[in-house]
Amino acid sequence: MTTNTRETAPLPSSVNPVERLALLTGADLAAVDAVIHARMGSEVALIPQVSQHLVDSGGKRLRPLITLAAARQYGYAGDAHVKLAAAVEFIHTATLLHDDVVDESALRRGLPAANVLWGNKPSILVGDFLFSRAFQLMVETGSPAVLNVLANASAIIAEGEVMQLRSAKNLAITEADYLKVITAKTAALFAAAAEAGAMAAGAAPAHYEAMRDYGRNLGIAFQLVDDALDYSGRQAVMGKSVGDDFRESKVTLPVILTLQRASEDERRFWRKTIEVGVQEEGDLSRAIEFLERGHALGETIERARLYARAARDALDICAESEIKSALADIADFVVERAY
Amino acid sequence: MTTNTRETAPLPSSVNPVERLALLTGADLAAVDAVIHARMGSEVALIPQVSQHLVDSGGKRLRPLITLAAARQYGYAGDAHVKLAAAVEFIHTATLLHDDVVDESALRRGLPAANVLWGNKPSILVGDFLFSRAFQLMVETGSPAVLNVLANASAIIAEGEVMQLRSAKNLAITEADYLKVITAKTAALFAAAAEAGAMAAGAAPAHYEAMRDYGRNLGIAFQLVDDALDYSGRQAVMGKSVGDDFRESKVTLPVILTLQRASEDERRFWRKTIEVGVQEEGDLSRAIEFLERGHALGETIERARLYARAARDALDICAESEIKSALADIADFVVERAY
Repeated sequence: MTTNTRETAPLPSSVNPVERLALLTGADLAAVDAVIHARMGSEVALIPQVSQHLVDSGGKRLRPLITLAAARQYGYAGDAHVKLAAAVEFIHTATLLHDDVVDESALRRGLPAANVLWGNKPSILVGDFLFSRAFQLMVETGSPAVLNVLANASAIIAEGEVMQLRSAKNLAITEADYLKVITAKTAALFAAAAEAGAMAAGAAPAHYEAMRDYGRNLGIAFQLVDDALDYSGRQAVMGKSVGDDFRESKVTLPVILTLQRASEDERRFWRKTIEVGVQEEGDLSRAIEFLERGHALGETIERARLYARAARDALDICAESEIKSALADIADFVVERAY
Repeated sequence: MTTNTRETAPLPSSVNPVERLALLTGADLAAVDAVIHARMGSEVALIPQVSQHLVDSGGKRLRPLITLAAARQYGYAGDAHVKLAAAVEFIHTATLLHDDVVDESALRRGLPAANVLWGNKPSILVGDFLFSRAFQLMVETGSPAVLNVLANASAIIAEGEVMQLRSAKNLAITEADYLKVITAKTAALFAAAAEAGAMAAGAAPAHYEAMRDYGRNLGIAFQLVDDALDYSGRQAVMGKSVGDDFRESKVTLPVILTLQRASEDERRFWRKTIEVGVQEEGDLSRAIEFLERGHALGETIERARLYARAARDALDICAESEIKSALADIADFVVERAY
């Protein structure tokens, strides 16, 4: 494992910044993958089967990568960051398993979701197992302050998920309320991933708080782009189904924005499809048409761009490094996904 | 809070030992309840609603009581045991919420189960929240060794639940396999509850291991009695429905024992009702008749009695005290519930 990243030759700018960051963290990401595969093991065969389906389904490991990068940025030379990064990915995976049950999802990363393949019960229980494994890994690293960051994030994520449940079918939700939901359900783990890495490396409070801000803003940008992509044809290319949020009657930012200036006719459409939940042939296309005509998708991406900029700005305090530059570029990259 | 329990007058033997232990731990149990109520709070109103339904539904707080008692037995004078005990109860409550979704239960402690009142989604997500709260509480106590005990227990419980899922409808499961399942899904938390309390109090390894053995054996006895009660009319008196395991096609020890000497006719009955899952009017009564005729319920209670004795024996190493005597009596009490 090399801790000095400045000796490596600069990478061509055509390499996307997530891949660049993976290369910059050297053997760390492979070490995380080894921990993930070792620790999702159990003599109860169904556990590694269900876990592996998600773990090896082509996730980008963005969250653990951020933990590794934050630790490296602060010159960390130990190996606790590898376990922390694996714990972050386990929390994420557990959340996905439970989300897919709650949302009755059919697809996840282009593959049938675990709840479709094995049913809801294994998804719930294997999720619980992975949550517990995450805590075991965190406990092994032994830092109470870092444990605290990740334990708090887990509670906040669950709160965000419940908030979202309550705001489903609710067209009256405000943009501010919606930001609260996604700050909890999505951004809290990005924030904790970044903060925990810096903290484990012994960064000063101003620095681990900056990393937390970076992660939180990145996470919000990430979720807003996801919200827009859900109504975009680009989803199909990425192996995701289009219109999942619509079918699940989730009120996301594009819908909130379009409602702010919707005609009575359009309002009636959203009430029928989201509040009442009656969706007919052609309704998804009509929804997309309304959202595009009202520029709600573009505006959602613009909002995401603001958060991406805030993420970039949060890094100002960090010493210049290739890792810092890759982290900053990831903020832009997350928004560029939309195009 | 009084740490010296010997000054209080001995309680009449008519007081059941769980109540005796509650009195012996003084104000601790009230402190645990205060922590539970404070920490199940959330600005997301659904979370305390669902949590409170379970928390205030008349559970005996047996697991947290054991944590408190183990700490007191070793002269603990701090207050970490209160948070640990609350964490133990949160893990238990989270498990109940998820269990009831997995088992599609209608009743819990004589009340409609949370999944019936609010649906599966809040039960899953509020369970996740309570798991996270448990870890937050544990982290606040700051002892890595104790954290380790409880994090391991959580992973083992989840493994046990998945094991049980796989053994449902499987009449070929052996008594040894079944003991493995219940040791994980039920006894691991009793074991961790006892061990964590002793460990927090600074007990020597031989002593916290003894407490772990006590908890494990008590937990097995507890589960076996539950298994027998599920086929007994006494359940109805306790506000539980009779035959839940049967309806859910769970193969528990009474069924395993009765199959060891079942006639071909009886075997056909169990295959139809459990393996195939076809249950008709009168089948539960017939199942109970088979189990009673083959003495399988009585034998299950006899097995429970052996584990209760092992639990009592594990306490031999402990200094004499009213707490020790109440813990020992609880082992018998758990079995006496069956009569």
